[in-house]
Amino acid sequence: MNPLTFDRDKPLDFVALGRLCIDLNANEINRPMEETVTFTKYVGGSPANIAIGMARLGMKTGFVGRVADDQLGRFIVRYLQDNQIDTASVLTDRSGSVTGLAFTEIKSPTDCSILMYRDNAADLKLEPQDINEEYLKQAKAILISGTALAKSPSREAILLALHYARKHGAVVFFDLDYRPYSWTSPAETAIYYNLAAEKCDVLIGTREEFSMMERFERNAEEDDETTARKWFGYQASVVVIKHGKHGSIAYTRQGERYPGVTFPAKVVKTFGAGDSYAAGFIYGLMQGWDISRSTEFGAAAAAIVISSHSCSEAMPTQEQIEAYIAKCRNGEIVGS
Amino acid sequence: MNPLTFDRDKPLDFVALGRLCIDLNANEINRPMEETVTFTKYVGGSPANIAIGMARLGMKTGFVGRVADDQLGRFIVRYLQDNQIDTASVLTDRSGSVTGLAFTEIKSPTDCSILMYRDNAADLKLEPQDINEEYLKQAKAILISGTALAKSPSREAILLALHYARKHGAVVFFDLDYRPYSWTSPAETAIYYNLAAEKCDVLIGTREEFSMMERFERNAEEDDETTARKWFGYQASVVVIKHGKHGSIAYTRQGERYPGVTFPAKVVKTFGAGDSYAAGFIYGLMQGWDISRSTEFGAAAAAIVISSHSCSEAMPTQEQIEAYIAKCRNGEIVGS
Amino acid sequence: MNPLTFDRDKPLDFVALGRLCIDLNANEINRPMEETVTFTKYVGGSPANIAIGMARLGMKTGFVGRVADDQLGRFIVRYLQDNQIDTASVLTDRSGSVTGLAFTEIKSPTDCSILMYRDNAADLKLEPQDINEEYLKQAKAILISGTALAKSPSREAILLALHYARKHGAVVFFDLDYRPYSWTSPAETAIYYNLAAEKCDVLIGTREEFSMMERFERNAEEDDETTARKWFGYQASVVVIKHGKHGSIAYTRQGERYPGVTFPAKVVKTFGAGDSYAAGFIYGLMQGWDISRSTEFGAAAAAIVISSHSCSEAMPTQEQIEAYIAKCRNGEIVGS
Amino acid sequence: MNPLTFDRDKPLDFVALGRLCIDLNANEINRPMEETVTFTKYVGGSPANIAIGMARLGMKTGFVGRVADDQLGRFIVRYLQDNQIDTASVLTDRSGSVTGLAFTEIKSPTDCSILMYRDNAADLKLEPQDINEEYLKQAKAILISGTALAKSPSREAILLALHYARKHGAVVFFDLDYRPYSWTSPAETAIYYNLAAEKCDVLIGTREEFSMMERFERNAEEDDETTARKWFGYQASVVVIKHGKHGSIAYTRQGERYPGVTFPAKVVKTFGAGDSYAAGFIYGLMQGWDISRSTEFGAAAAAIVISSHSCSEAMPTQEQIEAYIAKCRNGEIVGS
Repeated sequence: MNPLTFDRDKPLDFVALGRLCIDLNANEINRPMEETVTFTKYVGGSPANIAIGMARLGMKTGFVGRVADDQLGRFIVRYLQDNQIDTASVLTDRSGSVTGLAFTEIKSPTDCSILMYRDNAADLKLEPQDINEEYLKQAKAILISGTALAKSPSREAILLALHYARKHGAVVFFDLDYRPYSWTSPAETAIYYNLAAEKCDVLIGTREEFSMMERFERNAEEDDETTARKWFGYQASVVVIKHGKHGSIAYTRQGERYPGVTFPAKVVKTFGAGDSYAAGFIYGLMQGWDISRSTEFGAAAAAIVISSHSCSEAMPTQEQIEAYIAKCRNGEIVGS
Repeated sequence: MNPLTFDRDKPLDFVALGRLCIDLNANEINRPMEETVTFTKYVGGSPANIAIGMARLGMKTGFVGRVADDQLGRFIVRYLQDNQIDTASVLTDRSGSVTGLAFTEIKSPTDCSILMYRDNAADLKLEPQDINEEYLKQAKAILISGTALAKSPSREAILLALHYARKHGAVVFFDLDYRPYSWTSPAETAIYYNLAAEKCDVLIGTREEFSMMERFERNAEEDDETTARKWFGYQASVVVIKHGKHGSIAYTRQGERYPGVTFPAKVVKTFGAGDSYAAGFIYGLMQGWDISRSTEFGAAAAAIVISSHSCSEAMPTQEQIEAYIAKCRNGEIVGS
Repeated sequence: MNPLTFDRDKPLDFVALGRLCIDLNANEINRPMEETVTFTKYVGGSPANIAIGMARLGMKTGFVGRVADDQLGRFIVRYLQDNQIDTASVLTDRSGSVTGLAFTEIKSPTDCSILMYRDNAADLKLEPQDINEEYLKQAKAILISGTALAKSPSREAILLALHYARKHGAVVFFDLDYRPYSWTSPAETAIYYNLAAEKCDVLIGTREEFSMMERFERNAEEDDETTARKWFGYQASVVVIKHGKHGSIAYTRQGERYPGVTFPAKVVKTFGAGDSYAAGFIYGLMQGWDISRSTEFGAAAAAIVISSHSCSEAMPTQEQIEAYIAKCRNGEIVGS
Repeated sequence: MNPLTFDRDKPLDFVALGRLCIDLNANEINRPMEETVTFTKYVGGSPANIAIGMARLGMKTGFVGRVADDQLGRFIVRYLQDNQIDTASVLTDRSGSVTGLAFTEIKSPTDCSILMYRDNAADLKLEPQDINEEYLKQAKAILISGTALAKSPSREAILLALHYARKHGAVVFFDLDYRPYSWTSPAETAIYYNLAAEKCDVLIGTREEFSMMERFERNAEEDDETTARKWFGYQASVVVIKHGKHGSIAYTRQGERYPGVTFPAKVVKTFGAGDSYAAGFIYGLMQGWDISRSTEFGAAAAAIVISSHSCSEAMPTQEQIEAYIAKCRNGEIVGS
C-alpha cells in the first residue's frame, strides 16, 4: 500500500533543502578524539546525504541551499555536481559565513559522537528570496530537515518553501533531524516543528523527536498511534516513527501499521543510518512500491552505510542495495 | 448576519495579547515635535487600547503580556486594573527591558506621526512559557496583534497562544496592525502574518496590510474578494478590509459583503481610530449583533476617539457611543 | 594657585564630547513617577549640560557627538545652536538609532531618580572617523565624560579624541560621570576609565567613582591623597574628589589641597548639581582664577541649578552666579 | 648589546597570553584545498606556538588563556602539558564556545593561505577575572599577541594583564600578529594596538603592521626610524620591524640598528616563520645575548620550522638550532 501520488509531468524527481556541510571523520578510530591525529573530509549534513543517496539511486535530484564563499563551500558544490545533483539553487553566501563542520569521534561502533561547528554557518543564511517558486514547481517531491528551522533567515526560507510546495502540489517529506544546538529553547523548537509538520505529507523521525513536538499536548504514554493520528488530522499521509534498535514503524492515514525490518551489518559507526534509510525509503515510495518494500529497501541502504567510514560517500546504488539484500538472504552477511 | 458563536460558559469574555506601552502625546499640537514642550502620558499599544475599549463597554476582559520592571511598567498595570482588566497574566519582565514608547506629533488633524521607542521593549520579551493554557481556556475570544509577531520570543508566544485558542475553541481576532520597524524584512513579515492568519476567525486590517500578506501570491489588482476568499479557505469567517477614508468593508465566509459607515467628528488626530473601531466592532459581534450594526457601533467609537487628545483614555462606554450615534442622527454633530 | 595653562591662540575655548540626550522632567513633582501625568522636554546629558553652561558663561564652545535622525535629534541641534554652541562636529546618525532619554522622578528634593532609555542611543554611535583632528586642534580645552566610554564605537572615538587632544596640546577634563547601565562589568569599566584617565589633565568625580577605578590596586581606606597621587604619576595636574554633602576637595600635582564650599539653596531636585559645578569650575580655571575661586564659582552655579526644574535650561550666566554669591553673602538666600 | 633586564628571582621565565587553537594542515599539499582529502591536527595560534618554542628551548613557560570545553580543548591542554608548559592559568570556557581552527592550504611553498574559524572562539572569551595578578607577578617576561585584542572580553583581559605586568616589572613582548578578521574596522584596530603598545618593552611586527598603527600620524614614507622613535617615546626598548624577504631590523632605544640574517631552508610552507623567529629571538634576549646573536638564533629557528609540515610540533630545541646554524655554515644546507 502506498498512499502517495507524484506528478509524473514534473521534470525534477526530488529537491532537498537546507544543510550542506563538511564531515571531518576521524581516521584513527576506536579511540577518543583527543588521540585522533588525522581526519578525512566528506560532504555532510542530513539533507545533503539524502540528496546524494537519491542521486545515486538514479533520481533527478536538486538542492536548495547556501554554501560559504571559501574552499570548503566550493568543494561541496563540486561534489554535488559530480554526483549529478542540480546546483542551480545552491547559492554562495557572501556575508562572511563559514561552512558548518562535524568532527566525528568513533570511540567504538556503538559509542560515536559529533563535535559541531554551527556558529555563523552558511546553510543557516538561506533567505526567503533564495526560494525560487519556479524551481520548486518543477519538483515531484521536496525534503526539508528540522535543522534548517533552527534560525532566521533559514527558518523563514523553509516556511516559504513549504508554502510553494503545497501551492504546486509537490509531495513534502519532513526529516525531523532534531539537533539541540542552534535552538534557543525546547518550546521554540516544538512551535516551529509543529507549524512545519502541519504542512507535510510524510514525517520521519525518532520517538523522541515526535515526543518533543507534543510538549503542548497530552500523550504521556508516548503512544505512537496517538502521535500518528495527530498528524493525519493535518496534511500527513505517512508517519514513520523510529524506535532505535527496536526498529521503526510506518503508519498510514488509512490506519495501517508497517513494522520495519533490519539487516545485519559489520558496523563501523552509527552515523548516516537515518539518512541512508530515508533515501532508500523515499526512493521506494517514489517508485510506487508499497510501504513494506520501501522500508526494507531503506533498511538495507542503512546497513551498507553503517558498515563504511563515511556517510555521503557510502550512499549505495540500487544495484548495491539489491545485492546486499540478496547476500543477507543467502546468509553471506551476518552482523558484527 | 453574524457567523460567529461564542462559548457562553467561559468566564472571560475577551483576552488581548501583546503590546502594552506608553503614549507620550504632545500637549502643544498643530506644530512639529521640535516645538513641542510638554507631553502627557497615557497607556498605549493597539491591543491595550482595544482591551481598554472592551472593558469600558462592560466586557470581562483580561490581558496577556509583559511590562518593564520600572515606574512606567507599574503605571500600565495599575491603569489596566483601574479599568477592571484582569492582569493575572501580565508579567513583569526582569531582563532589563524598557517600556515601549510612542511620542505622537500632531502637525495638523490629518498630518500626524509617531516617534517610536521599540529597542529592548518589554512587550516583545513575552515567552512561550508565559502563555498559560488554563487562562486562555477561559476566554470566549482572544485578540492578537501583528506587532507581537515581529520578534522572538514574543513571536513564538503568540503562535503558541493561537494553538491553545484553537484547541479550546476561543474565537480568534487578528488585528493586523503592521508596523515596519522591528521587522527584518517584508518577506519575514508576510511569512509570519500568513502563518498566524491561517489560524484566525476574524481578520481586520487595511488594504495595504492584506496586500503585504499576498506577496507570494497573485492578486495584482488588490481585489478584496480575492483576498477574502483566500482566508475563507483557512479558518476565517469574517474579513474586514479598511480603505482609509473610503471606508471599510466586512466580508463573510457566506459570501456577504457589508460596507461600513462613518460618522462626522471634530478631528483632533487620527491615532486610535482603528483601535476604537475594533473594540466597538468586536463588542457588537460578541453581543450577537449582525455585522452591519457591529460596524456602525465601531465607527461611532472611532469618531469619538479621534475627537479627543488620547486613545486609551478616550475609549467610550456603550452609553457614550449610543449617545454619539443619536446626536449624529439629530445633526447635533457635524464634521470638522 | 592654578597649574593649568591654555593656548590663547586657539580659536575655540572649549569642546565637549559625547552624550547628547533628552531629559523628560516630571511636571507634577514630589510624587512617584507612576502618578506623574505630564513631562517637560529639555536637552540633557552631562557633557551637553556642561557645554551649555560654558556657553552661557560666554566661552566659545563646540560639541562633538551624534544625534538621532528624528525630531528629538533636530531639537537638540537647534537648542545647542540657539545657545551659541558650534555644531559643526555634531553629526546625524543614520543607523536607525534613537535619542537617549532620561525620565526624571522627583519624589522629594532629596529622593530623585532617573529612568534611562539607552538602548540603541545615537550618542553611542559616535565613530573614530567622526573625530576631526583639525577641529580638536582648535580647542584650548576638551571635556570627555565616562558614559561615552561605555560602548563601541563611541569608546574608540573618545580614545582617539584623547590621542589628538594630547598631540595638539589641549587641556583635557575628564568628568567621570559613571552610570552602571551600558557597561558589561565593573572590571570593564575600571579598565577603560583608567586607560582614559591616564591621558587627562583634570579629573572630576565622586569618591565612589575614584574607588571604582582602583579595583586593581590597594587603597582599601579609600584615601584621597593616595588616589590623587596615583593620577599625578600620569598626566593629571588637578584631581577633584567629591564627597556628596561633605563637599569636594581639589588636589594639585604640587601637593595642595583645596576644600570646596557650598552655598545655600531652595532645593527642587539634585540633578544637574555636578554638571553646573563642572561648568563653573572649568570656567574659573580657564579665566586663570586660582582653584579656590574656581570651586566657589562652580558651587554657586550648582546651587542655582538645583533650585530650578531643569538642568540645561537653568545653567546660569556669570552675572547670575555673581549675583547669587552676593545674595548668599548678604543672607538674602538661605537653604531649604 | 641588550637593553633588557629580567628579574632573576622570579620563578617563571615566560608566560604567553591569548590564542590557543587548532591547525588542520592539509596532508596532500601543493594543490588547492578543494582537492585536499585529509588533514592533520596540531596545536596552533601564534602565542601557543611561541610558548611551545620557548618550552622546547628549556624555558620555564606558562600560558594564560581559555580553551573550549570539548575534545579539541582537552587536546590542547594535554599537548601544552606534554611540552612542560604550566597550564594553571589555562581555563576551560563553559559558555558553549568552540576551539578556533585554521585549515591551512599549501598550493606551493610560496602560495599558502589559511581558512580560519574564529566565530565564538574560546580564546576570545578570556575575561579580566581570569587574569591572576599573583601568577603574572611570578613571570620574568610575558608575551601578548594582537589577535587577543580583537574582541571583548579578551581585549580587556589583555589590557589588565599589561597593567599587572607593568606593576610587577615583567618585561613585556608584543607580537603584533595582526589578522583582519575579528576586527570591526581598521581604526578600531589601530586604537587598541597603540594603547597596548604604549605599555610594552619589545615590539615585533611587520612593516605593514607598524604602518597600520600609524594611521593617526604622519609617516607617509613608512620610515622605520620614525616608527621606532615613536615607540621609544613610550615604554619600548627594542622595536623589531620585519620586511618579509628583505629581512628584519631591530632598533634599540639607544639608537642602534641591527639588520637580521636569514638562513637557507628547504621550504615546505611559510607558516610559523614568525612564531619560531620570535621564540628564538626572545630566548636569546633572555639569555643575555646581544641582539645580533638573538636575531640570528631566531632566524635559524624560523628556517627549521618552514622546512617542516607543522608549526608547533616543529619548534626546535637549542641543540637543533645550533646544529642547523653549524650545517648552514658548513654548506650542508642550501635553500630550496
